[in-house]
This record gives sequence, structure tokens and C-alpha cells, in this order.
Amino acid sequence: MLNPETTALLVIDMQKDAVERLVPTGAQAVPAIAQALKAARTAGITVIFGLRVHRANGDDVERFRQAVFQEKPFLVAGTPGAEVLPELAPLPDEDRIVKTRFSCFFQSDLLILLTRQEIRTLVVCGIQTPNCVRGTVTDALAYDFDVVLLDDAIRAMSPEVHAANMYDMVQMGATSMTTAQFVSSLVH
Amino acid sequence: MLNPETTALLVIDMQKDAVERLVPTGAQAVPAIAQALKAARTAGITVIFGLRVHRANGDDVERFRQAVFQEKPFLVAGTPGAEVLPELAPLPDEDRIVKTRFSCFFQSDLLILLTRQEIRTLVVCGIQTPNCVRGTVTDALAYDFDVVLLDDAIRAMSPEVHAANMYDMVQMGATSMTTAQFVSSLVH
Repeated sequence: MLNPETTALLVIDMQKDAVERLVPTGAQAVPAIAQALKAARTAGITVIFGLRVHRANGDDVERFRQAVFQEKPFLVAGTPGAEVLPELAPLPDEDRIVKTRFSCFFQSDLLILLTRQEIRTLVVCGIQTPNCVRGTVTDALAYDFDVVLLDDAIRAMSPEVHAANMYDMVQMGATSMTTAQFVSSLVH
Repeated sequence: MLNPETTALLVIDMQKDAVERLVPTGAQAVPAIAQALKAARTAGITVIFGLRVHRANGDDVERFRQAVFQEKPFLVAGTPGAEVLPELAPLPDEDRIVKTRFSCFFQSDLLILLTRQEIRTLVVCGIQTPNCVRGTVTDALAYDFDVVLLDDAIRAMSPEVHAANMYDMVQMGATSMTTAQFVSSLVH
């Protein structure tokens, strides 16, 4: 179903601080994301990591998060907390998109990378469903990409919020499947 | 609470085709939006209309909506269906933002207008909660605007979807209030 040459797997915010401090439920998605990564790499699918990274002084943090950040900074450039979880570490040739907002497209070069590589389908996983995942998906749909959501490889703070957001994104035009279905779709 | 000089009221997609054909529940929000418009105009608050408008051939419609559009075009430029509902009609000096995607910021000049007018707070109403309202709010928060949602002047296809999206947007940093509270905040 998916054409590996025009498909990219996008892993969102699976960084140490994000999983350990901001969205602890993200840890539950690690096995599924690892499975998706392995299958994508085997199939030769482009893998891209969307990463939230902030300046140490917080000047680039959303205004509504300033207080939380100033109390205890998170995802600061150059610190271990901003690194991808070791189980999901990017390979040397895999692109990393650095961002300071929800959407991986916001003021990043993601659109340029996808256009250059002639990607038409974006397979999305990571955390968390209502914020960075949904912000990214909204922009991807606006740019007319086909979007595939790996339901069990995405997490929100609660299952209810996850389900409500998955429903909305499918209504908006995205497709939802399990990681197992994604892996199967790559085996010929 | 709100400073009229740095606040704008943004009315999203309250157009004939949008309300009559796409999001019929939008009609329920008309009285509250009319009340918000009246209060904003009396207080001298900037009023902006976000409008979805498409080419007649549908070349600018999202790919996932092409089939629906081709079957029966909606919100086509120059047709009555693309006009704002007469009860909520813009005054001659009020800006209209034309867009083809969910977010009023997407490839429009909304950010330029808001910056030029030194707007810091965006008060949002219209349809529908999970799509154009939320897409716009996500971008507004990314640009560090304060966002106020007029709960009863916003509608989704169902109350459940509306409530779930209001919850998410407040978690993301927006503030929710009733239209009556907004009107009261303008009276000194």
C-alpha cells in the first residue's frame, strides 16, 4: 500500500526530557516506535526525527510555558535531556528537525526536505497526540501530504485525549493504522 | 481585563455555505457572535473575518476534500455561498482574511495585519472547533499571541468534539470564556 520511495516516517519529540518529565505516557509508545523504525529502515524509508530544543535562557519557549520552563528548564540544547531516547536513537544519516513549537513544520526546514525527497506520505508517531502530533498533522494536511497515524505508537497524557484527537485527525483527512499494519504494508 | 487597543476579535468561517452545508450547528453560534461583534465594535476593538474561499475548479481545495468539492462545490469565490451570513456581515472597514486551509494564518497576511496593529490578544469565535478554530489557535499560540476562546460562540459538529477540543486548547495555553464574560470585560 505504501510506496517506500515517497514515504517518510516522522518520529516526534521522543526525547529524554519530553518522555521523562513532560509526557510520561510516551514511554509506553517506545516498543511500537522501535518496531516502526526497524521496519522503515529495512524497507529503505526515509526516517526523520522532529525534536523540540530550546535555548538555555528560554527566550524561544512559548509564552504560556515560560513559568514552567524558568522553574526547571527542559529540552535545552546540548543537554542530555534534549537527546532522543537511546532505544530510538537516529542513525547518523537520518535527518533531525529542530523546532520550538508544536508543529514540526513551524519555522523549520521540514517542508524543504520532504519536497526535495519527493515525499508524498508522512507516517507519524511520537508524543503527544493533541499538541506536537496534531500540530504537525494539521500542517502536513494543509500542504497536501497523505498522513498515516500509527495509533499505538502515539501517546497523549490520557487515553481519552488520545482517542478524541485521533478521531478529529481522521475526520480531517488522516489515516490511522496500527504499527503492525504499517510493518505489514512494507513487506512484499 | 482585555485592552481594546491590543485586542482583535476574529470571526472564523461564518459563511453561508459553511454554515448551511458543512457545519449546520454553526447557526447556533450566530446570536453569540452577533453579541460579540456588537460589543467589540462599541469598544473600538479591531474586527477581522477569516474566510474560506476556493477557486471554482477546486485546484486550491485540500486533496482529501477534492471528491466532496467536485461533487458539489462550496465556498467558491464570487458566489453567494462564500459570503458572510448577513446577520454577521463585516463593516466596510473591517478586514477579511481569505484562506484555503484550516488556519487563518496559513499563507495569509493575518500575521502582518496583527503585527502592524500591535495586537497581542486574539479573541476567537466561529466554526468549527476541531478544524479552522483549532488550526488558527495553534498558530496564534505558536506566534505567542494571547488567545481567548468564546466558548458559546464556537461550534463543532457535536458537543462532545467541541468540548474535547476546548479542553485541549486550554491545556495548550488558550483561555476560555463565555461571550457574556467577554462583553462584561469590555464595559468600564
